[in-house]
Amino acid sequence: MRRPRAAIVVTGSELVRGERTDLNGPFYAREALLLGLQPVRIAIVGDDPDELEAALREGFEADVCLVSGGLGPTHDDRTIELVARVAGRDLHVDTALESEIEQTSRRFAERMRRPYADFSSGVRKQATLPEGAISLGIAGTAPGVVLDAGSCVVVVLPGPPGELQRLWPRAVASEPLQRVLADTTTPDRRVLRFYGASESVVAKALADAGGDGDGVEVTICARDFEIHVDLIVEPGAEARAASLEVAFVAPVADYLFGRDERSVQELVLELCRSCGLTLGTAESCTGGLVAGRLTSIAGSSDVFRGGLVAYDNDVKEAVLGVPANLIGAHGAVSAEVAAAMAQGARERLGVDVAVAVTGIAGPGGGTPEKPVGLVFFHVAGPTGEKSLRLELPGDREVIRSRCTVAALHLVRRLLET
Amino acid sequence: MRRPRAAIVVTGSELVRGERTDLNGPFYAREALLLGLQPVRIAIVGDDPDELEAALREGFEADVCLVSGGLGPTHDDRTIELVARVAGRDLHVDTALESEIEQTSRRFAERMRRPYADFSSGVRKQATLPEGAISLGIAGTAPGVVLDAGSCVVVVLPGPPGELQRLWPRAVASEPLQRVLADTTTPDRRVLRFYGASESVVAKALADAGGDGDGVEVTICARDFEIHVDLIVEPGAEARAASLEVAFVAPVADYLFGRDERSVQELVLELCRSCGLTLGTAESCTGGLVAGRLTSIAGSSDVFRGGLVAYDNDVKEAVLGVPANLIGAHGAVSAEVAAAMAQGARERLGVDVAVAVTGIAGPGGGTPEKPVGLVFFHVAGPTGEKSLRLELPGDREVIRSRCTVAALHLVRRLLET
Repeated sequence: MRRPRAAIVVTGSELVRGERTDLNGPFYAREALLLGLQPVRIAIVGDDPDELEAALREGFEADVCLVSGGLGPTHDDRTIELVARVAGRDLHVDTALESEIEQTSRRFAERMRRPYADFSSGVRKQATLPEGAISLGIAGTAPGVVLDAGSCVVVVLPGPPGELQRLWPRAVASEPLQRVLADTTTPDRRVLRFYGASESVVAKALADAGGDGDGVEVTICARDFEIHVDLIVEPGAEARAASLEVAFVAPVADYLFGRDERSVQELVLELCRSCGLTLGTAESCTGGLVAGRLTSIAGSSDVFRGGLVAYDNDVKEAVLGVPANLIGAHGAVSAEVAAAMAQGARERLGVDVAVAVTGIAGPGGGTPEKPVGLVFFHVAGPTGEKSLRLELPGDREVIRSRCTVAALHLVRRLLET
Repeated sequence: MRRPRAAIVVTGSELVRGERTDLNGPFYAREALLLGLQPVRIAIVGDDPDELEAALREGFEADVCLVSGGLGPTHDDRTIELVARVAGRDLHVDTALESEIEQTSRRFAERMRRPYADFSSGVRKQATLPEGAISLGIAGTAPGVVLDAGSCVVVVLPGPPGELQRLWPRAVASEPLQRVLADTTTPDRRVLRFYGASESVVAKALADAGGDGDGVEVTICARDFEIHVDLIVEPGAEARAASLEVAFVAPVADYLFGRDERSVQELVLELCRSCGLTLGTAESCTGGLVAGRLTSIAGSSDVFRGGLVAYDNDVKEAVLGVPANLIGAHGAVSAEVAAAMAQGARERLGVDVAVAVTGIAGPGGGTPEKPVGLVFFHVAGPTGEKSLRLELPGDREVIRSRCTVAALHLVRRLLET
């Protein structure tokens, strides 16, 4: 069965100039995929009308065209005018929409202490829609619009990602888009998460298991130093997917850590919570990033009590209680100091489990014996401990990020055993 | 003078599906802009050959077409084949390039303990180029290629951003691209960085000063809770740019913190360094992110000595020495506790300057008196202190990021006075 094709058109000068990273294209693409559409293209253009018109013309060749941006009150914002032109529709003022936008704008004018007259032409412009278009109501002062343009259903939403995401469910619920979706089936999605194996090893396991095809599409993606594998399963291919998954996972089962989208920091917090354990950190080269990851999760405070960033050796001694002679004998970047940092964090923070990281993030500070990228990890808990030595490639940012992920996976492995 | 137009074509299934955010399009766009080219479109397509061919055909209508991805060893990687087709060129094996890739692949095969024969067909494929193309050498195993396709100069680089960025300077230096650039003048760029003013206040100041135009293009961009303003100045418009800048900055001068691209963490570290001061942090709701930002800068260890993440009240008392009765009287989220955390960090970490953050990042934990988003900051140094209370909108992630930036700017303001 052929899936309906979705083309995405994003407009914004700062986006086409690379000054801001577009979030709307990837959002639209993921949502389209989940609805059973096939995203085929994301086109990012500026406010040049010729470029935008060309991108819309091409986009309208798909079954669904998802458009973002260019809905503001000024003359630079030409998306609606060009959508109407490409669809061969006249423009008209939607009076219900106009009074909706007027209300918001009057409140805004009051707050800014400016006369409403300054805004009225912009309001009229923002309430102008192509003939036959459906208004989805407004977020900010810009409306969301759905237009059935014949062979293509066009969705136009405002550029600010929060506004676009707020109006998106209304676009999905609209009659024209529901009509397209009625002919599609949402494919099933299975998720596998690996850590510690390279992308090529995982890809080889998949190829050896027979590879994708026959209704099972597999994506293998290295992300955040993990390997994320998704199986997109067409209706009818469930048995093929199940047997492929078994054969594929077998040789790399040691590296499999998840069958859902929970992050490693979520898994660590849940493992601690289920065992009634508190958690703390002692960081040198990661400089607080491990604690930052753990506390990014809402509700982490019932497990995570605190962390120590001991960048300077004096701080390692005074705050973490690492013996000065240990640092003298082995150096701050050593397995011995990592273990002492973890022990110190358990005592000083009064936590059950503590993980420590000490290493050389570079670009300076490396020696032939202890090169940039050398990192020691240690996790200590009430039932045991684990240590790890890694030599990581990459620049300072990459090394610090990899260390953060490695530290969290080390805690996970201790708690899973 | 018309600037040469640059079209960007990015290929990658995971990019068009929104599973990974494309970094190459924005990189190419920024670089093109700095060279004096005008980026007009970023097209992201998957590995469907029809879509990629259509995107290339459209891209070749620009003066320069910058392409990334699809250069791997397997049959899915069709960029070179399609570039040749659209340019009307035959394909041939570049033997010098082939032996270069072979060397890398033999080393890789050895490490993986697999016979080189497994790789040889991929090597041959990766060394196959359109007639007349210039090889830029390899990063990973994929080559960078420049092709003068008549009215369009085409640059093709590998998809991994590190590899693309490594080969880019060679593409810029190549004869065909230099020929295009010889006819352009690189516009001058002036940078202004604001903190504490909203985007609309800055935009109004610009409009009141006369706005852009007449050879001065101004972009105003809210990024990382700061407002970043760039003036792109065409040759001959320097005087207009200088007077615009003076008039524009005057009403918002209090918020101006930089005239170059240094980040606030770089400014803070440099201010400390120039005064011979050491620095530390005491964080609650930011959970290590302030320390993480500071230590992201290479060489920060000569200023930043350490940080304390005191998530739990017991840790605030035991490790930071915040009096229990202070927390009892005012609550952990209070100006008093923020001040005590900063003092505690100065003493316990033995640093000259310490900044403290305590607040409610949500989504839970808010009360009518102390809602989600309420945050207290305090910075204490040898010559004085500053405190700040903010009520921040947004979700947990936004609040934590805003707090991190606010804390760093508070340190900057103390050190600048």
